[in-house]
Amino acid sequence: MAATAAFVVIGDEILSGKTKDKNIGVLADALASAGIDLVEVRIVSDHEDAIVSAVNALRQSADYVFTSGGIGPTHDDITADAVAAAFGVGIDVDPRAYALLSDWYEKTGRTMNAARERMTRIPFGADLIENPVSIAPGFRLENVFVLAGVPAVFLAMLETILPTLEGGVPLFVEKLPFACGEGDIAEALGEIAAANPDVSIGSYPKMSGGAFTTEIVLRSRDQAALDAATAQAQKLRASLPDAAPSA
Amino acid sequence: MAATAAFVVIGDEILSGKTKDKNIGVLADALASAGIDLVEVRIVSDHEDAIVSAVNALRQSADYVFTSGGIGPTHDDITADAVAAAFGVGIDVDPRAYALLSDWYEKTGRTMNAARERMTRIPFGADLIENPVSIAPGFRLENVFVLAGVPAVFLAMLETILPTLEGGVPLFVEKLPFACGEGDIAEALGEIAAANPDVSIGSYPKMSGGAFTTEIVLRSRDQAALDAATAQAQKLRASLPDAAPSA
Repeated sequence: MAATAAFVVIGDEILSGKTKDKNIGVLADALASAGIDLVEVRIVSDHEDAIVSAVNALRQSADYVFTSGGIGPTHDDITADAVAAAFGVGIDVDPRAYALLSDWYEKTGRTMNAARERMTRIPFGADLIENPVSIAPGFRLENVFVLAGVPAVFLAMLETILPTLEGGVPLFVEKLPFACGEGDIAEALGEIAAANPDVSIGSYPKMSGGAFTTEIVLRSRDQAALDAATAQAQKLRASLPDAAPSA
Repeated sequence: MAATAAFVVIGDEILSGKTKDKNIGVLADALASAGIDLVEVRIVSDHEDAIVSAVNALRQSADYVFTSGGIGPTHDDITADAVAAAFGVGIDVDPRAYALLSDWYEKTGRTMNAARERMTRIPFGADLIENPVSIAPGFRLENVFVLAGVPAVFLAMLETILPTLEGGVPLFVEKLPFACGEGDIAEALGEIAAANPDVSIGSYPKMSGGAFTTEIVLRSRDQAALDAATAQAQKLRASLPDAAPSA
């Protein structure tokens, strides 16, 4: 059984349409490679109750929870306080984070101020997550990993975390493009799915030039089971006429 | 008070990273233009219990709920059954949907089959949502709108729905780019936010060429309040030295 993960994207800018999320796809790809199942994503607003309820719901249902956004220096950066509230622990300026940032500002000719100090407030009991891009750290509290929302920083933090996660089980994947629409193969495909319980078979319609094609994706943690199901799907594809794409 | 909306994205293909979602940004933009607040998005897997719990949680908390995906003809298309289960109503082949699709297949030289008939199964009591792209309809049950996942079809269905939604309140938006990082303006910005309770002020750091800049976005449904806060933010920006971008 593979470990499971959930993702809480914190940001009014995504919900308002102002910013198009880039981190969901990055995390999904990284977890898939690590053999960890991403089971749910929630995008919530910059309000403490919304963050607290999402984090508390998902840290119960998933082995790992990642959050992105809301750990900067501005008035709308409330993630650290919300996560502390979710766990019922205190939060204050963290000497480790303060040292990292004050050194960084000194090196770069800037000065610590109340807003930047805000980025050093870390819930009690949390471990810091290194930020090689802009230094201000993320943190881990139990199974919850709090990361920055800026994609370059999110990815850098994620890359430091991934090797520390346990429970990954490699997932084997085969993809078969079909020139026809789903309606032409759905019945035969359903029979193949029923006959191969250890293989997850997904059917993904695509529109290209106003016509539908279909990509069949077979996933399994059992290579032999995947090979058997893939052979059956290839046989199905070979049996089809060169169908005009249809839905 | 503006109406609120939530979005349930149904699809293992998004969670697995295979497909990068395009519909969240499209819906967020459309609702923002309509003056309706998107308050939460959940991406869930193709499992009935996951869909049922997301739909039932969000149809209570939001005025409108949209879903995308899982209404095609294949074995993994279970959204209609899951939504029927969420509402505790029955589901069967819908004569209106059946007529639409059988006519369409006849016109396009194809034949109805069990898989295509699956796309005509609609929960009892639902209204159909027109699909001008590939005909197979979505449906509305109370405040829940069930749409296709293929972006071209999702958008076409959304465009037919939007004019029917009530409660939209136009949102006025001003954007001010700052050449500095958030840390240089966070304190002054916090004071402006506190002094303008009717204006939502967001601060969005961006990395460009390894340096941080900041975009300040002011939003309000009160034009006069927005103008006042925007003037204060412009005054702040004018007061800054040409700072080297920093975090």
